[in-house]
Amino acid sequence: MLGVSFLEALAAAVPPGRIFRDADIMAAHARDQAAWAPAGRPVALVRPQNPEQVRAVVAACAEHRVPVVTRGAGTGLSGGANAVDGCVLLALDGMDRILEVDEAEQLAVVQPGVVNDHLRAAAAERGLWYPPDPASSPWSTIGGNAATNAGGVCCVKYGVTRDYVLGMQVVTGMGELVRVGRRTRKGVAGYDLAGLFVGSEGTLGVITEVTVRLLRLPEGPPKTVVGAFGSLVAAGRAVAATAAAGITPSALELVDRYCLRAVDDWKNMGLADLGNVLLLGRVDTGDEEAAALRACFDEAGATWSTRSTDAEEAEALFSARRLAYPALERLGPVLTEDVCVPRGLVPEMLARIEAHAKAHAVHIANIAHAGDGNLHPLIVVPEGDDEARGRAQAAFEAILDDAVALGGTVTGEHGVGLLKKRGMRAELGEDVLTLHRAIKAALDPAGIFNPGKII
Amino acid sequence: MLGVSFLEALAAAVPPGRIFRDADIMAAHARDQAAWAPAGRPVALVRPQNPEQVRAVVAACAEHRVPVVTRGAGTGLSGGANAVDGCVLLALDGMDRILEVDEAEQLAVVQPGVVNDHLRAAAAERGLWYPPDPASSPWSTIGGNAATNAGGVCCVKYGVTRDYVLGMQVVTGMGELVRVGRRTRKGVAGYDLAGLFVGSEGTLGVITEVTVRLLRLPEGPPKTVVGAFGSLVAAGRAVAATAAAGITPSALELVDRYCLRAVDDWKNMGLADLGNVLLLGRVDTGDEEAAALRACFDEAGATWSTRSTDAEEAEALFSARRLAYPALERLGPVLTEDVCVPRGLVPEMLARIEAHAKAHAVHIANIAHAGDGNLHPLIVVPEGDDEARGRAQAAFEAILDDAVALGGTVTGEHGVGLLKKRGMRAELGEDVLTLHRAIKAALDPAGIFNPGKII
Repeated sequence: MLGVSFLEALAAAVPPGRIFRDADIMAAHARDQAAWAPAGRPVALVRPQNPEQVRAVVAACAEHRVPVVTRGAGTGLSGGANAVDGCVLLALDGMDRILEVDEAEQLAVVQPGVVNDHLRAAAAERGLWYPPDPASSPWSTIGGNAATNAGGVCCVKYGVTRDYVLGMQVVTGMGELVRVGRRTRKGVAGYDLAGLFVGSEGTLGVITEVTVRLLRLPEGPPKTVVGAFGSLVAAGRAVAATAAAGITPSALELVDRYCLRAVDDWKNMGLADLGNVLLLGRVDTGDEEAAALRACFDEAGATWSTRSTDAEEAEALFSARRLAYPALERLGPVLTEDVCVPRGLVPEMLARIEAHAKAHAVHIANIAHAGDGNLHPLIVVPEGDDEARGRAQAAFEAILDDAVALGGTVTGEHGVGLLKKRGMRAELGEDVLTLHRAIKAALDPAGIFNPGKII
Repeated sequence: MLGVSFLEALAAAVPPGRIFRDADIMAAHARDQAAWAPAGRPVALVRPQNPEQVRAVVAACAEHRVPVVTRGAGTGLSGGANAVDGCVLLALDGMDRILEVDEAEQLAVVQPGVVNDHLRAAAAERGLWYPPDPASSPWSTIGGNAATNAGGVCCVKYGVTRDYVLGMQVVTGMGELVRVGRRTRKGVAGYDLAGLFVGSEGTLGVITEVTVRLLRLPEGPPKTVVGAFGSLVAAGRAVAATAAAGITPSALELVDRYCLRAVDDWKNMGLADLGNVLLLGRVDTGDEEAAALRACFDEAGATWSTRSTDAEEAEALFSARRLAYPALERLGPVLTEDVCVPRGLVPEMLARIEAHAKAHAVHIANIAHAGDGNLHPLIVVPEGDDEARGRAQAAFEAILDDAVALGGTVTGEHGVGLLKKRGMRAELGEDVLTLHRAIKAALDPAGIFNPGKII
């Protein structure tokens, strides 16, 4: 049990009204979107208003050895933001100010609770662009994106969150507020601590401010190229052909027949009539590259293809990708995979996923950032069927092992959280885990930051 | 003094003939190109042939608490590879095999001693490109480039070494050979240890293999745009105008009149007749962007400008940049700066550098990766003039402080090594240094890796 002294220390750290201990309110904030991951019981939810209050909360927790689980919008898919027993939930979504957008230096400084799409909109007003675009961009926060090194659709050409984070302000395990990284385009003064915090999922400290690099907003709308294929393997061939042809699309997404049907059943869009598998491509260079991408699709055996310059039509086609996950969730609990394999092995990995679906008697739908080799098999089971749930979990782990066997990784962009801990151990091996534990102990000596996550 | 037992352990770690204790041979390998940085006396030079031998050497050193100073080609400019007293110099330039160039995955796996230009050539044979291009690329090694997070001319558009390192094999402070990072395009399984080793200057472990991402080789030769300006400030205005116009050159280099005259005195090229300051730009997109870049130069007050499609002429103009450093070295010892400031503050920083030259009565020439805000003031003093040397060192430190005061960094790409230790402390502050020390102690518990460098 928590002593009164901790609650007093916590109360002293933030103004009145920022601490919530109501069971329902805490429960509503005790997990992210990884429905299959366990969540513990927090002791309090705290909503600080500024970095100094975050620092004071962390200092109180460090002194009393109380776990700190930081959360943004709670859109994670690995359980990284799930409460652990007795923790303080540190909700930063209220720290949502865009502090600066500097046109000349092409950078922005934001509080961690700024929503991804809000930053993109603020940048666009100045002709600038923040590329990382996770599917959660309408809701997820930059702090959470940085903590998980979020990816997205345009990564295939423009990279992931880590490629845009220049610097950060963080609260350390010593309870201090420090700045790591930089504002300049280049810099090698000391270790890349900002890069280390990116993707550390709240286990090394609390991010209280992020400085991101921005690009110029691309001119004109992208060209959309869509191909329909008879099989996953044929679509996989088209992806490989695209890479071999030296084409760099700004998106190359795969959606399979399970997803198409689920979207059709929900929205009656007739997507499944187009073919068994869709490849959705975007090109933000010239018409030539768009034509070359379509030619790759056709030569790989597309049963149908189109090239659209109409924004509305393009949006409708890409909605197949966007709606797939919610459409599948209507059918039952979804267990989301996030493996990434060498691009040339996408067809092989897709074939193995199909085999696992058969072997474990579960439905596995596939969406994928195909151009990156980042696959999102979605395992769907009937609501309330515990036996199917067990089979789904077995298939989930088998897919992770196959990704590792193919030279890939158990998580391309969602993070380790709770769901990928066994898979990550299998991928990294004991020696590399030892390095992780050493770094964790060095930066979080009290062991308070998101304990039990990642390692 | 070293016990016989250590030398026996060292002898057991590598085959006969790989250990050198001759004083002249050791002295020849005891420093990098930072002539002004101190170097200690090594106890042995070891030239391992493979990662396992490196591991065995490190294990012997860890057991006997003998410092390990790793070196590639020794082209560093901060003293990072300089010997410390009683160290083993671990020379990896002989481990120079390109293990793999994978066209489909667009990556290469190389031993640390592979020379940058050799990797570029091997990639080019497959239509691929390794962008990071430090001025030392004909000699410097990928291991050294990774250890220092080397930059170069094309960073302004294509990023630095960190942006291309996917994974590594390293020997840890526990004397183990481990793999960190990945081969896939994306991956977030655990902390970004590969990124942490990049730029750690040999203080956290020994890099025994590097996996780098490659791009497609750009089509056709780049367009070269050169402008001459009456003053550093006018050239600085042109740089700011380029950024404001949304132009992304693949190189934007500044060379001042001191450098132009030094090159002329050596090679009789007539460069100084073109103007006081040259801006050398490259564009690897269309003719439109080249025209826009030239327009920026002209509108900012260029006294002369040209746009060349002739490879030979372009090469001659860019040689002003390449030859500047050796030309200045002919005039006396050169102390090389490497500050990086926000791009908009380049004119201000150049003005402050001029003021410091005057105040300290030293010659300061300037070359700069102007598009990045990364300036290389070169302080030249007469050979053997100790008093001038003292003034140069005072100017050097004053310039570092000004870079920090302008929100910049003391090192954009050369690294901290020995020369920037005070500057880095001023830049990062005690709290952030504490984090550095904690990480160093965690990954190098015996304290054997390049002690006294960075921290």
